[in-house]
Amino acid sequence: MGILERIKQPRDLKTLNEQELKLLAQEIREEIIDVVSANGGHLAPNLGVVELTLAIHRVFDSPIDKLIWDVGHQTYVHKLLTGRQNEFKSLRLHNGLSGFPKRQESPHDCFETGHSSTSISAAVGFAKARDLLQEKFHVVAVIGDGAMSGGMAYEALNHAGHSKTNMIVILNDNEMSISHNVGALSTYLCRLRTDPRYARSKEEIEQLLKKIPRIGDKVAKAAERAKDSLKYLFVPGLWFEELGFTYLGPIDGHDQLLVEQTLEQAKQKKGPVLIHVITKKGKGYPPAEKNPDVFHGVGPFDKETGAILKKSTVPTYTQVFGETLCRLAEENPKITAITAAMPSGTGLNLFAKRFPDRFFDVGIAEQHAVTFASALAFGGMKPVVSIYSTFYQRAFDQVLHDVCLPKSNVVLAIDRAGVVGDDGPTHHGIFDISFLRVIPNLVFMAPKDENELQHMLYTALRQEGPVALRYPRSVGQGVALDENFKELPIGQAEVLREGKDLTLIGTGPLVYTCLEAAEELRQGGVEAAVINLRFLKPLDKETILHYAYLTKRMITVEDHILAGGMGSAVLETLADAGLKDVGIECIGYESFVEQGSISLLQRENGLSVEGILQAAERLKILHRVREGRNRG
Amino acid sequence: MGILERIKQPRDLKTLNEQELKLLAQEIREEIIDVVSANGGHLAPNLGVVELTLAIHRVFDSPIDKLIWDVGHQTYVHKLLTGRQNEFKSLRLHNGLSGFPKRQESPHDCFETGHSSTSISAAVGFAKARDLLQEKFHVVAVIGDGAMSGGMAYEALNHAGHSKTNMIVILNDNEMSISHNVGALSTYLCRLRTDPRYARSKEEIEQLLKKIPRIGDKVAKAAERAKDSLKYLFVPGLWFEELGFTYLGPIDGHDQLLVEQTLEQAKQKKGPVLIHVITKKGKGYPPAEKNPDVFHGVGPFDKETGAILKKSTVPTYTQVFGETLCRLAEENPKITAITAAMPSGTGLNLFAKRFPDRFFDVGIAEQHAVTFASALAFGGMKPVVSIYSTFYQRAFDQVLHDVCLPKSNVVLAIDRAGVVGDDGPTHHGIFDISFLRVIPNLVFMAPKDENELQHMLYTALRQEGPVALRYPRSVGQGVALDENFKELPIGQAEVLREGKDLTLIGTGPLVYTCLEAAEELRQGGVEAAVINLRFLKPLDKETILHYAYLTKRMITVEDHILAGGMGSAVLETLADAGLKDVGIECIGYESFVEQGSISLLQRENGLSVEGILQAAERLKILHRVREGRNRG
Repeated sequence: MGILERIKQPRDLKTLNEQELKLLAQEIREEIIDVVSANGGHLAPNLGVVELTLAIHRVFDSPIDKLIWDVGHQTYVHKLLTGRQNEFKSLRLHNGLSGFPKRQESPHDCFETGHSSTSISAAVGFAKARDLLQEKFHVVAVIGDGAMSGGMAYEALNHAGHSKTNMIVILNDNEMSISHNVGALSTYLCRLRTDPRYARSKEEIEQLLKKIPRIGDKVAKAAERAKDSLKYLFVPGLWFEELGFTYLGPIDGHDQLLVEQTLEQAKQKKGPVLIHVITKKGKGYPPAEKNPDVFHGVGPFDKETGAILKKSTVPTYTQVFGETLCRLAEENPKITAITAAMPSGTGLNLFAKRFPDRFFDVGIAEQHAVTFASALAFGGMKPVVSIYSTFYQRAFDQVLHDVCLPKSNVVLAIDRAGVVGDDGPTHHGIFDISFLRVIPNLVFMAPKDENELQHMLYTALRQEGPVALRYPRSVGQGVALDENFKELPIGQAEVLREGKDLTLIGTGPLVYTCLEAAEELRQGGVEAAVINLRFLKPLDKETILHYAYLTKRMITVEDHILAGGMGSAVLETLADAGLKDVGIECIGYESFVEQGSISLLQRENGLSVEGILQAAERLKILHRVREGRNRG
Repeated sequence: MGILERIKQPRDLKTLNEQELKLLAQEIREEIIDVVSANGGHLAPNLGVVELTLAIHRVFDSPIDKLIWDVGHQTYVHKLLTGRQNEFKSLRLHNGLSGFPKRQESPHDCFETGHSSTSISAAVGFAKARDLLQEKFHVVAVIGDGAMSGGMAYEALNHAGHSKTNMIVILNDNEMSISHNVGALSTYLCRLRTDPRYARSKEEIEQLLKKIPRIGDKVAKAAERAKDSLKYLFVPGLWFEELGFTYLGPIDGHDQLLVEQTLEQAKQKKGPVLIHVITKKGKGYPPAEKNPDVFHGVGPFDKETGAILKKSTVPTYTQVFGETLCRLAEENPKITAITAAMPSGTGLNLFAKRFPDRFFDVGIAEQHAVTFASALAFGGMKPVVSIYSTFYQRAFDQVLHDVCLPKSNVVLAIDRAGVVGDDGPTHHGIFDISFLRVIPNLVFMAPKDENELQHMLYTALRQEGPVALRYPRSVGQGVALDENFKELPIGQAEVLREGKDLTLIGTGPLVYTCLEAAEELRQGGVEAAVINLRFLKPLDKETILHYAYLTKRMITVEDHILAGGMGSAVLETLADAGLKDVGIECIGYESFVEQGSISLLQRENGLSVEGILQAAERLKILHRVREGRNRG
């Protein structure tokens, strides 16, 4: 029986000796590599925090003490130590354990995360609630150096430092967020790491400083300044100290006993404390140590060799986007590309290599990314901002206020639109149509396949004013890519199939599902027209109204939440035209969507041929379908 | 002829002598006090930057050099100096000069602002575009200490410091944002201001430091550290220096020549420079100097006495909210209140005085405010976050991801919902229904009057899970306030009037407009039912469908953009029920709305009795109305 199996709850850790802890760390790494190599997941971040998590659970008393994990993709170790070993094999599977903290999953998950840079805000909240209710417990936030580049982390530091409440922020510095980290703070952290003062313990220095006497008169000022000066000379981390935090570190995050000692020390301090811990992403698994970027979030792989299991030969939308942008940038020196800490994920790594001067990774800073792009455009460039749909939620105001209101020439590339699969509800991109289509002045498109994506990107870059472009996290349809780019007429839908009984309106690759469904319907004697909407804004009202008059029945199909989505836009169009007597069924998501494979989630929510047939049934065309089938 | 009249463009300033500049500053202050006392506006911020703006326009060459004003409400002086004197009397009036920078208004307004903390992002954008296009000009951002508490300002500092591009950030430190400033950075700035090193010039120190020789071997390390140490001893602003900025200051922002000298010095530096300028809000107008909070944004006032012109005796929604919250907090010690730098504007100043421990002003940090509240709730408190509708756009992701997904017990009070009047398109709260109603798990209400507001707040605080509550910037309807609070049934609309021919569905105070219109319609023989929707989510589908069946004609009326708004939600309900044959007209805004009085803007967009009658006409009930009128 391994040691891990004996850990039913965190307190079981407290009796282990050093040797057992080392073995346990190894068992945990093996278990994580086992499961992630099969299910996919965030491998490197978890391998990096094994000792840190063990130390935290030995020093603190969860769930009484509150542990908050920023982003939360580094909680596998935490899950294994808090009674979830038996379900761990189901990690990230449909109905299985989440890859992020979930309150419903365990009392040890006191705060849910998924998006970055929220943990310090949450820690201040728990700490303040504790103070007001006169309770006693510790609050600990664990945040990576990447997440620290997000503005809200700073907003929270600013509040925490001012409030003087007791809380501990562990800065898990692994010198990168998803990719290599950027920004001035990152450079500063690097200076701290490489500083000769590294080795010296903070305690030692404080003792030293205490020996300088405080003097109560004016002459003392100079002495105080000298003391400050000495502090600067010996104590690193003044950037945090100036914000009201006690800074401890930097320490080696794989030296578990040292981490425990430092945590114990932090527990004794009054006010907010920041512990700077250095860890290595992928620690203990050579392929991940070597390529932490690849093994940050990874699909199934061969755990012996570290080889990523062979993927489809069909390129993803992301790849086609990245390659097309490079082709276009070759000819247009004004094209610039911006991302927020996800150059690989957005396919911009190609662009970054080819056009390093015109590429900007601004860190986990979606707000800044968008406003920065707006000014780049006013300054004469043609910027393309590529961010995942779910993270564009962070830049809603900037898109509205800084890009669309002043009509800035920015292209917003919205990657991972629609459900994204195993990452679950925090990561599905199912709100962007709703929140973007309400913004005036925006042109908003979605391609049905990778070939249309390249034409749309070309079209977007030829437009004046803001353009958004959404496409999913998946491989393309496998269609051929045209050699030459075509400019698509703005606001014009594409009619892919004529029909007089019913109209299917689709957006994105679900247009192909509509085409399949139309074929099925035809078997049943129903002639369905199929419209690839192409433009979510401006809407092709003429085409929509034409087919509404003609067929009197419509089904809208979108990989998106129903409230305010494409279907809703179609309804507004019909109402605005005063068109009654049209039966309409909207297919999409009703609420937040759980984790699972993309195709499963879509099927479960009616985004399938079967789902479309059922909608046709609700529109009272079903008996015709059935009759047709019975006849067939 | 005054000096101001002679300034047709910024370069006309360059020939003025010291005496003339002093007179000009005085003329500018008089002109601003004149216009703002008549039109209302941001008085104190503009009086504080007279000398600073003069200095900027004397040292830089706008519009070639780019001047970016954070928030932008401090640009009156800038407008007076850039050829807009003749229109200045129209400031903030319908079709007049905007109270914020507008690209369409002048080439000197290179970037539009309104929301806070965007200027550094914009400055990096202009600077990078300049570098890429190999152009030559200076980029200057002017940002207040309040705006500096916003996360995106930090995201941009982080990028700028890392990029090493030439740009100048002027930190206009007036020790407050809208109210007194908060946060650790603010404390830090205060330390800088009161530091004895204040008086010492940076140049002096740098000369001093240069005298310490650099040594190229290992022994040099200690010397280098000693040098660092000396720098810390003498040079303030290391917090910014660590982020890669050269820090200059602090300097007195009313000493115009000193400001000019410092700006000249900054122009010579390589890389990003931050100039810390101390100014006094309301400078030169004693009532504003004494009460900068009151005179931050102010309505018309008597310029001789500084007395605010008498307002309505009817309380505003904001006041009723603030007073109700205090009454409820008296009985429930778990109620906490949070705002983002607008305690007075949100009516929470009452709460702050009565319950200082339970009140949190987190600075201009909407993202943090919401996530902090979520954790406060999980920690056992009952937080109410009060922010203006337009600024909630900054916290969309936090509302979705940190509050609604985990079903946190947070009440989101959305003040200034609907058009807000003179502040114009950057400040109208006309998107919140669209972006909030798409979020699952949220209960979302809007009261028709101030009495319903108190019951709704009471109801919200008794709910489990997230609740949002939107109400406008205006005085109430003047209705009596019930002594006792009533819990309203969740998701249930209020039918205020029965009718068989037509249904009017209203939200917020426009419900009263619907009632008036119904009375008019009755004169024309049309019996209109009137529904106060009360809940934008969950929708009272039963009532909506009942009246849809009954009357076959509906008009929705909302102080909000049409796309994705309340009307759209009603359309979704009808489609979902498979209800055809219902004629429906939605009244609301089509696009961004310009500045003007609230009632004018509403009237212009059909949100009036006349607008409702016109919609009834489009629904083919008009001839009946007209017949009725003709008969009458």
